[in-house]
Amino acid sequence: MEEKFVIGFEYGSDSARALVVNAHTGEILATAVKYYPRWKMGLYCNPKINQYRQHPMDYLEVLEDSVREILRNCPEGTAQKVIGIAFSTTGSTPVFTDETGTPLALLPEFFENPNAMFVLWKDHTAVKEAAEINKLTKEWDVDYVAYEGGIYSSEWFWAKALHILREDEEVRKAAYSIVEHCEWLPAILTGVTSSKDIVRSRCAGGHKAMWHPRWGGLPSEEFLTTLDPLLAGFRDRLFTDTETAEKPVGKLCPEWAARLGLSTDVVVAGGAYDCHMGAVGAGITPHTLVSVFGTSTCDIMVIPYEQMGHKLVKGICGQVDGSVIPGMIGLEAGQSAFGDIYAWFKRVHEFPIKQIIGQTELIDFNTRAALIDEACDRIIPALTAEAEKIPLSESTVIATDWMNGRRTPNADLSLQGTITGITLGTSAPRIFRALVEATAFGTKAIIDHFLNYGVRIDNVIGIGGIALKSPFVMQTLSDVLNMPIKVCNTEYACTLGAAMFAATAAGVYDKVEDAITAMNSGYAKEYLPNTENADTYAKIYQRYIKVGEFSEKGMF
Amino acid sequence: MEEKFVIGFEYGSDSARALVVNAHTGEILATAVKYYPRWKMGLYCNPKINQYRQHPMDYLEVLEDSVREILRNCPEGTAQKVIGIAFSTTGSTPVFTDETGTPLALLPEFFENPNAMFVLWKDHTAVKEAAEINKLTKEWDVDYVAYEGGIYSSEWFWAKALHILREDEEVRKAAYSIVEHCEWLPAILTGVTSSKDIVRSRCAGGHKAMWHPRWGGLPSEEFLTTLDPLLAGFRDRLFTDTETAEKPVGKLCPEWAARLGLSTDVVVAGGAYDCHMGAVGAGITPHTLVSVFGTSTCDIMVIPYEQMGHKLVKGICGQVDGSVIPGMIGLEAGQSAFGDIYAWFKRVHEFPIKQIIGQTELIDFNTRAALIDEACDRIIPALTAEAEKIPLSESTVIATDWMNGRRTPNADLSLQGTITGITLGTSAPRIFRALVEATAFGTKAIIDHFLNYGVRIDNVIGIGGIALKSPFVMQTLSDVLNMPIKVCNTEYACTLGAAMFAATAAGVYDKVEDAITAMNSGYAKEYLPNTENADTYAKIYQRYIKVGEFSEKGMF
Repeated sequence: MEEKFVIGFEYGSDSARALVVNAHTGEILATAVKYYPRWKMGLYCNPKINQYRQHPMDYLEVLEDSVREILRNCPEGTAQKVIGIAFSTTGSTPVFTDETGTPLALLPEFFENPNAMFVLWKDHTAVKEAAEINKLTKEWDVDYVAYEGGIYSSEWFWAKALHILREDEEVRKAAYSIVEHCEWLPAILTGVTSSKDIVRSRCAGGHKAMWHPRWGGLPSEEFLTTLDPLLAGFRDRLFTDTETAEKPVGKLCPEWAARLGLSTDVVVAGGAYDCHMGAVGAGITPHTLVSVFGTSTCDIMVIPYEQMGHKLVKGICGQVDGSVIPGMIGLEAGQSAFGDIYAWFKRVHEFPIKQIIGQTELIDFNTRAALIDEACDRIIPALTAEAEKIPLSESTVIATDWMNGRRTPNADLSLQGTITGITLGTSAPRIFRALVEATAFGTKAIIDHFLNYGVRIDNVIGIGGIALKSPFVMQTLSDVLNMPIKVCNTEYACTLGAAMFAATAAGVYDKVEDAITAMNSGYAKEYLPNTENADTYAKIYQRYIKVGEFSEKGMF
Repeated sequence: MEEKFVIGFEYGSDSARALVVNAHTGEILATAVKYYPRWKMGLYCNPKINQYRQHPMDYLEVLEDSVREILRNCPEGTAQKVIGIAFSTTGSTPVFTDETGTPLALLPEFFENPNAMFVLWKDHTAVKEAAEINKLTKEWDVDYVAYEGGIYSSEWFWAKALHILREDEEVRKAAYSIVEHCEWLPAILTGVTSSKDIVRSRCAGGHKAMWHPRWGGLPSEEFLTTLDPLLAGFRDRLFTDTETAEKPVGKLCPEWAARLGLSTDVVVAGGAYDCHMGAVGAGITPHTLVSVFGTSTCDIMVIPYEQMGHKLVKGICGQVDGSVIPGMIGLEAGQSAFGDIYAWFKRVHEFPIKQIIGQTELIDFNTRAALIDEACDRIIPALTAEAEKIPLSESTVIATDWMNGRRTPNADLSLQGTITGITLGTSAPRIFRALVEATAFGTKAIIDHFLNYGVRIDNVIGIGGIALKSPFVMQTLSDVLNMPIKVCNTEYACTLGAAMFAATAAGVYDKVEDAITAMNSGYAKEYLPNTENADTYAKIYQRYIKVGEFSEKGMF
């Protein structure tokens, strides 16, 4: 059998990762990680108001650099055997374009205007607009957020678009259409010259833009103009249809074939969000939750359409036919903080180290700096080592995992974190253990929520930094969930997932499931629940629920 | 006017302090602090079960050493001008005695038996016995805990006595009577040779032994033997009357006059607890709360008998006619942790310092040790410096002060601490600020509780380490209470208070109030509330109350 290769991309928050993968075996030949140059300098962002924008030039530059680098690192002649390319990106990360589909920031007059750039998923400038959308959907006869978990977020497409239209008159005048990051990359590689020709992502449109066939695509013009007359006309200029990501968008246009050093026969697959393609890369099957354990979590499920039918799961981040695997309902949930909670506790401990060691006269400047670096690096490992030794019977400190609000179940970003059950004997490792347990309880709350809506979950596949790096967290999670947890054997699951879509789009496989079977990377480790611990955690979890109920009532 | 001097003693938890004071002016001539030698070695204690016992020899040795030392440091001839001596001690700190009033541990056969020694106030071995007393008082027709706040504590006289009678058959056989530390010292100095002749303290008996004139002294024999037949006979062998501390107990017996280098004309005053005499030393007046701010707090109030009448304040640590100033009702309350909460947070921060700096290879062993010492010492000052800079408008973290349970209002030692309102931006100094505010809210809860029972408090006098050392804590407390707080000008308030009782007992003054007027040490500082901050804190306090209500319901 002739060797064929595909290229998979994952555009993350800070950098893009690229892989060259054997389309038949899934073997990874070369990898590249490139940081966005302007973003790295902190340009166009204002963390104080949670404004996070990315320049389209950042995306294009790392695209070209990455492909050139990975091909250089492959055996001679590999480029000629590349048959497909696919992109997973963050989202919702939309940008306003002109009629040709060009992001406004690529035009000279908007080159330095953050409102003409991609609005990164974690940008929260549109809180007010999201609230208006939620108010209006409750009053409307069609429930446009029914398939998006019932609550529209400030991180999503329409809230962001409306916010910028209100903010920036120049952008408003020039804005013709809007495109998601994951839709724009395939469009530009296939030489699209009209915004109407951009192939739209099922994943992006269905989860974040209130797109659904039941109401013929996007929300009605009347709904949008009632929200704000500034939105008039966009619906017609946007799209009615969306496509799943295994469908070819087209082939590499001559310009980009030349820039990347690839042939014009290379098939470009549809785009989708990173976690959705990551779930495929991790080998998702029905009744398996694939969780990306990072600073926050993103949880992905698939349920065959015939099982799900018309049932809705409220209070999650959406359920979209084909957003993960064509022919199945893809469901998305997530915790708004996971590793970020451990990082928070690390920062609390850094205070005396930086503040006090930083000012001591006992050691010289260089030793101080080296000691602070070493000490800060060792906080989490030291806390973990001590926390592991504490018997579960002494897990009497209870925390919630809402230090960054709650995404799922039932989004409420105003919630805050609590630590209770503190005595004068409560040590730092005991608090750390409670925080690890709290993040695990947060995952259990999501799984229980799915179960309440009739969606059964039997096991978990973990991907992301924490899954590979922290056996203590993973074992605690397995015990709390009373479920096995497999950890994906690669840190490139989202990129590998894109490669699977590229291979399917290029015709190597009839369907995505076949690509998963052939190309998966296997599992590094499987954590099995200790049933005795699981029984104890079931009781402690009830305390977590009660602390949470009280926080939710707004009494704190 | 001929110079006259008095000696005041304060027997604390770890050491005794002694003063020679000018009986007319309050001027302090000499001071001594002596640590209990056996206690310092950790003898007779078992912190794991909260067993804390002190040997009577420790008390006698520091008594003789202290008096010898302070007299050596005074001008020639001072000893001849000493006219009185008085003792404040911890309490309830009782011991079993034989018929002569000798603590059993002074007999050869009991010399090493912890059950024959003084049971220090903070000994919690009698939790079960306290619960039995509380159960029985609720069923009895006379409410023997009415004047002790309605809840009997494991730290008090009868619980401790019953626990030891049950535990130790040898002690049980030899036990004839029981004496409090503050009663025993005056008895031994005046040469008492029969337990029946020991003058009993109004303060100790009224606050901790359920003594009250309404039921003719101690609880009835029937009550005590229903509690446990082992208590049979003690009531008759103990006492019916108690005396206030300004009444002379007698004069120095020849033996002790010789041992101390004083004359047999020296008047020995009655004994009382440290905080009660401390309130006098600090210049207590009606409607002023005197608070000892240490690891925990003890709050003392006086109300003229005619104002108080027969009204009860429930949920405090007792109200006793004459326990502080004769002719007034002395009321006692307190927080079971104050400085201990800051010390807890310090320990949490010590973890990375000790664990990580302690193991670094970057610096040598001696530098590591010195750096750890320096860093640990600087934690609280560094947290304080940063916490002070945080605008009150950003005090959004809310904590309770129940990390060691709650003493007042409404004792519940099973309560635990909570910290809520945590976000990913919550820094260590913000948590520290919340903890300082929590301790201040705890004081406000006590003051509001008094007010609910019709007892008005207008201002606070602070004594103890934290009052003198932490302007940040004191200013926060003043703002939270919306009350001025004066800080006593001496760290020896409890000892100075004893000197005032000695001077009154020796006839220099007609009443204790006159001693206060003449001998007080004045105030080092007065904190005035910032009314704008007080308004804001009034709102934040409502959140503290709500967090507390939920904790109390046992839902955590």
